[in-house]
Amino acid sequence: MTDFAATRAQFHIPEGVIYLDGNSLGPMPVAAEARAAQAVREEWGEMLIGGWNKAGWMAMPRVLGRHVGRLIGAEPGTVVIGDTLSIKVYQALAAALAMRPERRVVLSDSGNFPTDLYMAQGLIKSLGQDHELRIVAPEEVEAAIDEDIAVVMLTEVDYRTGRLHDMAAISARARAAGALTVWDLAHSAGALPIDLAGSGADFAAGCTYKYLNAGPGAPAFIYVAPRHSDRALPALSGWLGHAAPFAFEQGYRPGEGIDRMRVGTPPVLQMAALEAALGVWDGVSMTDIRARSIELSELFIAEVESRCPQLELASPRDPLQRGSQVSFRFEESYAAVQALIARGVVGDFRAPDIMRFGIAPLYIGEDEIRRAALILQDVMENRLWDDPTYRARAAVT
Amino acid sequence: MTDFAATRAQFHIPEGVIYLDGNSLGPMPVAAEARAAQAVREEWGEMLIGGWNKAGWMAMPRVLGRHVGRLIGAEPGTVVIGDTLSIKVYQALAAALAMRPERRVVLSDSGNFPTDLYMAQGLIKSLGQDHELRIVAPEEVEAAIDEDIAVVMLTEVDYRTGRLHDMAAISARARAAGALTVWDLAHSAGALPIDLAGSGADFAAGCTYKYLNAGPGAPAFIYVAPRHSDRALPALSGWLGHAAPFAFEQGYRPGEGIDRMRVGTPPVLQMAALEAALGVWDGVSMTDIRARSIELSELFIAEVESRCPQLELASPRDPLQRGSQVSFRFEESYAAVQALIARGVVGDFRAPDIMRFGIAPLYIGEDEIRRAALILQDVMENRLWDDPTYRARAAVT
Repeated sequence: MTDFAATRAQFHIPEGVIYLDGNSLGPMPVAAEARAAQAVREEWGEMLIGGWNKAGWMAMPRVLGRHVGRLIGAEPGTVVIGDTLSIKVYQALAAALAMRPERRVVLSDSGNFPTDLYMAQGLIKSLGQDHELRIVAPEEVEAAIDEDIAVVMLTEVDYRTGRLHDMAAISARARAAGALTVWDLAHSAGALPIDLAGSGADFAAGCTYKYLNAGPGAPAFIYVAPRHSDRALPALSGWLGHAAPFAFEQGYRPGEGIDRMRVGTPPVLQMAALEAALGVWDGVSMTDIRARSIELSELFIAEVESRCPQLELASPRDPLQRGSQVSFRFEESYAAVQALIARGVVGDFRAPDIMRFGIAPLYIGEDEIRRAALILQDVMENRLWDDPTYRARAAVT
Repeated sequence: MTDFAATRAQFHIPEGVIYLDGNSLGPMPVAAEARAAQAVREEWGEMLIGGWNKAGWMAMPRVLGRHVGRLIGAEPGTVVIGDTLSIKVYQALAAALAMRPERRVVLSDSGNFPTDLYMAQGLIKSLGQDHELRIVAPEEVEAAIDEDIAVVMLTEVDYRTGRLHDMAAISARARAAGALTVWDLAHSAGALPIDLAGSGADFAAGCTYKYLNAGPGAPAFIYVAPRHSDRALPALSGWLGHAAPFAFEQGYRPGEGIDRMRVGTPPVLQMAALEAALGVWDGVSMTDIRARSIELSELFIAEVESRCPQLELASPRDPLQRGSQVSFRFEESYAAVQALIARGVVGDFRAPDIMRFGIAPLYIGEDEIRRAALILQDVMENRLWDDPTYRARAAVT
């Protein structure tokens, strides 16, 4: 049984803060501080260029990829770390499209995070053929998969509502129609059990700064199913994805398996923080995480619904249809979230009218959930959001 | 007059090390340690998601881009930080090719760093038209620019020999032929004066972990000439390059000017180290850097040539034709470099037979140059390289 008091003790949460925004940026694992300092002072400072071998920097994308892979049910050697999620989605989609040259449609849904759609639009423009990005409502995805579809590109958990796609069912349907799948696991990795190997997914990508708590701007990961790994081409064919990077050949030859999805020099300081953040998962069962997340989410919904009649649940009511977040609709959500933050409850706002709360059992318990609901009640009941300070929008929300 | 004793004091160089490999990875500026720690503990740890506004993370790519821009002669607002050099070269090349739709040839040279060639090959494959990557010898580039050429893509300073291209002459020739230029400044930024604004360059990209000393895996930068900034499209069209990233629209609309070259979430911890590293340049004149670099390089060549008749100068003899490195050819360069490193002189090896030494006046002086030459003499004269330990190749060299 996962010891959540022990995991909680591994995080630094500022005094007086109830942090329900780990689905945007996870809080700092205590060990990250020392590990990052070590990477700077003892590795970069003392080893200089030698750190690439001596401190294992060069191997980190693969080593950390294997660790992340264990958390998402991936086969060993199918995940590598690097770049940003946008870049990794581009690589996955480009590789998948190249494997279906006779088809022209990328199917996605209106619940996808916009950068995935934007990257697809950029790729399609580059391809210069008559590819189409077809966007349907989330609940229409399965029915929209037919033999025109080259690639189904979806985010498993909707960033606004937390609505959860059925990865296995959609992947099976795609496969039956001869389409490939690209899954964005941004709000899944570390949030719920994922069985990439068993799901039939072809490609996946995700970020490590949300439920994996690796810090601001932490690198992304990419997964390629073993059956594709020697055929999938990275499109962004950088030297560290080359079969022999230090031979400095003029022609690109893809590296073996997942290594070819590496591009340029990986961000060592960020990877050090990621390494520390992954250490928190030792002894943590993703099944326990899921059970606890549902328990806490159900509690939060019940508390908020009984205390705040002004709010409308925007997340699916069935916990099995949700990721690890709970969202509510309210016309003045932006200001209400600012009022909450001023009172120590950190959630976030997503346009146009969503307030969303990430439930991360590693560092959130019942006490925080109950206190957050009480503070939200205060904000709503007493219209504390109705304040010009809270209504003035910052550059980033 | 730049005070090189003062700049030297701003770096941590391990006891007993003469570091002539800053062209691979610059040493740690003392201030980077505290700044990185601050980003981890005080920003991520205490501000959590709020750091994007409160600590200015969201603006850092532009703010630091402006600072880098000053060091490379770029107009304000033409440089932004992010991703890796491979990715930024891809973006620049893709944007440039899209601006010359009627042409099909990318011209580069055999002195270019392989990742630039690989990324071009990947892009050309994606474009699926009949583009060609034409690779000529460095000295044949100018003559090879004709009206078939869409883009001339070159690295200004050759990573092996240090041979320096004439950016202004080649850019002018390209422009006259109706071609665009993409300049890779990996071994130029922080190494010698660059006048991007005056050179007629169209696009440029570079890394910050070499002569700019921002640490392992530090992010890259990209430059787009102001005359193109509202026409150039990023190809890798990520959400942070969108005109309104937090509106979460379904369709991509490019941001204003250089901002559109942003892609995904930027690496905050690496940017913090970069910020500290850029602080070292306050009060440093790039003209002084160049004069001192030439002085030290000439001294090193004279010392090595008089002491080590076994070595053949691989760099141009004329200092005006070189960047800020000196390379020698020797059949057993790999083992010789290992023998040097074991004796505290850190240079590096580049296949097939090059030993290369970066000359960074910020932290290298005459004393180090003379001592390095003496140790190299010892290694050569006494065949210290002829040792199985030094001949065994590590994964990364």
